[in-house]
Amino acid sequence: MRNYKIGIIKGDGIGPEIVEEAIKVLDAVASKEGFNLEYNEYLLGGAAVDVFDNPCPDETIKGSLNSDAVLFGAIGGPKWESLPKEKRPESGLLKLRKSLGLFANIRPAIIFDELVNASSLKPEVIKGVDLTVVRELTGGIYFGEPRYKDDNKAYNTMIYTRDEIARIAKIAFEEAMKRKKKVTSVDKANVLEVSELWREVVEEVAKNYPEVELEHMYVDNAAMQLVRDPKQFDVILTGNIFGDILSDEASMIVGSIGLLPSASIGGKVGLFEPIHGSAPDIAGQGIANPIATILSAAMMLDFLNETSAAERIRNAIKEVLKEGYRTKDIAAFDAKEVVTTSEMGSLIADHA
Amino acid sequence: MRNYKIGIIKGDGIGPEIVEEAIKVLDAVASKEGFNLEYNEYLLGGAAVDVFDNPCPDETIKGSLNSDAVLFGAIGGPKWESLPKEKRPESGLLKLRKSLGLFANIRPAIIFDELVNASSLKPEVIKGVDLTVVRELTGGIYFGEPRYKDDNKAYNTMIYTRDEIARIAKIAFEEAMKRKKKVTSVDKANVLEVSELWREVVEEVAKNYPEVELEHMYVDNAAMQLVRDPKQFDVILTGNIFGDILSDEASMIVGSIGLLPSASIGGKVGLFEPIHGSAPDIAGQGIANPIATILSAAMMLDFLNETSAAERIRNAIKEVLKEGYRTKDIAAFDAKEVVTTSEMGSLIADHA
Ligand SMILES: CC(C)[C@H](C(=O)O)[C@@H](O)C(=O)O
Ligand SMILES: CC(C)[C@H](C(=O)O)[C@@H](O)C(=O)O
Repeated sequence: MRNYKIGIIKGDGIGPEIVEEAIKVLDAVASKEGFNLEYNEYLLGGAAVDVFDNPCPDETIKGSLNSDAVLFGAIGGPKWESLPKEKRPESGLLKLRKSLGLFANIRPAIIFDELVNASSLKPEVIKGVDLTVVRELTGGIYFGEPRYKDDNKAYNTMIYTRDEIARIAKIAFEEAMKRKKKVTSVDKANVLEVSELWREVVEEVAKNYPEVELEHMYVDNAAMQLVRDPKQFDVILTGNIFGDILSDEASMIVGSIGLLPSASIGGKVGLFEPIHGSAPDIAGQGIANPIATILSAAMMLDFLNETSAAERIRNAIKEVLKEGYRTKDIAAFDAKEVVTTSEMGSLIADHA
Repeated sequence: MRNYKIGIIKGDGIGPEIVEEAIKVLDAVASKEGFNLEYNEYLLGGAAVDVFDNPCPDETIKGSLNSDAVLFGAIGGPKWESLPKEKRPESGLLKLRKSLGLFANIRPAIIFDELVNASSLKPEVIKGVDLTVVRELTGGIYFGEPRYKDDNKAYNTMIYTRDEIARIAKIAFEEAMKRKKKVTSVDKANVLEVSELWREVVEEVAKNYPEVELEHMYVDNAAMQLVRDPKQFDVILTGNIFGDILSDEASMIVGSIGLLPSASIGGKVGLFEPIHGSAPDIAGQGIANPIATILSAAMMLDFLNETSAAERIRNAIKEVLKEGYRTKDIAAFDAKEVVTTSEMGSLIADHA
């Protein structure tokens, strides 16, 4: 029997409750598709600070590297916000990304027909949107040295090497080949030297993908175009900080910020997580929406080449939504029945 | 008689035609309000490259510094895109901003009730939006040293000093005092040292404005919140690159990208310009919308303390729109009559 070692990082806030539901669904499809999942849990973020005084313990890195894939909930909360920077949950996540070599963050912005009214954009603007953001995740200004702060000045360095740009560009073009064959590379080449190199290298990588149409767009224009006409995009390729901004904007545009998954890949092992945060204000109340995490689990199965199990999950979610079941966050829009976190997980597991 | 020396920079593309209309309107209100405007024209961008082989000639800087205010159209176009960076129109604009000490860019995102349907957001989401972006304009990663590029790596430096942050923060709080008394300072303090200092200094400046509510928001969240609920904002205060991105996003959200003005201030003389670009594809056809430039002229009059003349202009624009006159770009939405660039200018001048 095919066997996969899955690292589980529940994290903080609603993390534990939503990851539990994803496991429920994973178990359901594994038994139906005849493979086995072995789970090992690791700590990250606030949960890790509480136990190890370290938001990203070595054990978590080692354990993750020993897994076939890692499923992750969310981190952070007011409890850890006033700690010094290196102890804060976010630092733990950044360290994990870097240690696992997760240089590519992939965020599909999917429209759920049932929830098309949840967007603040007009239905006709967003109906049919199908775009994905490919964000560089272990370089750029997030990790650039030197970085410095005293009372009178502070600086950070935005830096990219040719190799870093080439490998993320390659991921974006591969993604486009599986989709609508268009890449929009986003930069600020009219101002930044980094972006000039970015553009050059992306052009070169594009030569290996003659079927894919490449366009370049300035980041300010991209932020506008996402609002004006999101349908024009297929794959958006960009650096770490621009990707941070644009992928959040894109998810709000499709109106399903609570429903979107992401994959961070590139190293030996991939990390799969919902794009939403740890929502400490609603933790433990059984009202969190587990769908983004369950969809992240589906992306994980895709990457493990268990694509038919992944499809099962996606179809199950569509059916459950079609039948009118909603968690509280998406209940305003034509709910037949409002269900709890755990009920939603069970419904999807049953339909899978 | 009150006399003002106005620098005129028409620029490229539709720049000349729209600035002409703004001058028409300025002349109309000047004679009604009893002051005099003396115009001197300077070259910038592609127009300056063509004549002086320099996108920002010394004469333009000197002439601007000798003016009471500068009215500017737009620059750029395909003709100059393949020139080396220092000869490109954008470099000219950046040099002018720096030379004039224009450290504050103010961009109100106004909703025109007549055009509420022009936004891709739902009318109920944007009706009543009234926000302004205060963007730092002569620091940050745009101007930070060292900056470097070779074939294998490239970097830029995002840097801010305490003084640079304090002076732009002060502008934002002053702006808020004239408005709804709320400042949202946008940064990425969970990752960047620069943003940590930014937050500290903004907190300090806030102490002098006890009536103003201050909140901090991460830039990724701000990009989402602008789409989700733009009404929550009053003044958005942010650095150069984040401001570049968010102000363009905000203008698209209110649906009137072709209608919005901006002011760049802080030095001896202010620069007033529409936020849209030079639109080379429609230059010379008489279809460009001059309203953003005319509103920029109104902002200019405000800064010269000719507020009643400025109000005249704004009211005239509202009336002309109410009467159903539209340039082609905004004609899709209930136009009574589609008019040319020059007809629109004349209509506004007549109503002012
Ligand atoms: C928590 C934060 C450091 C992180 C980032 O900026 O990368 C988050 O916003 C994300 O996008 O995953
Ligand atoms: C043309 C470009 C250099 C400029 C900028 O990025 O500042 C423009 O986008 C703007 O916002 O005025």
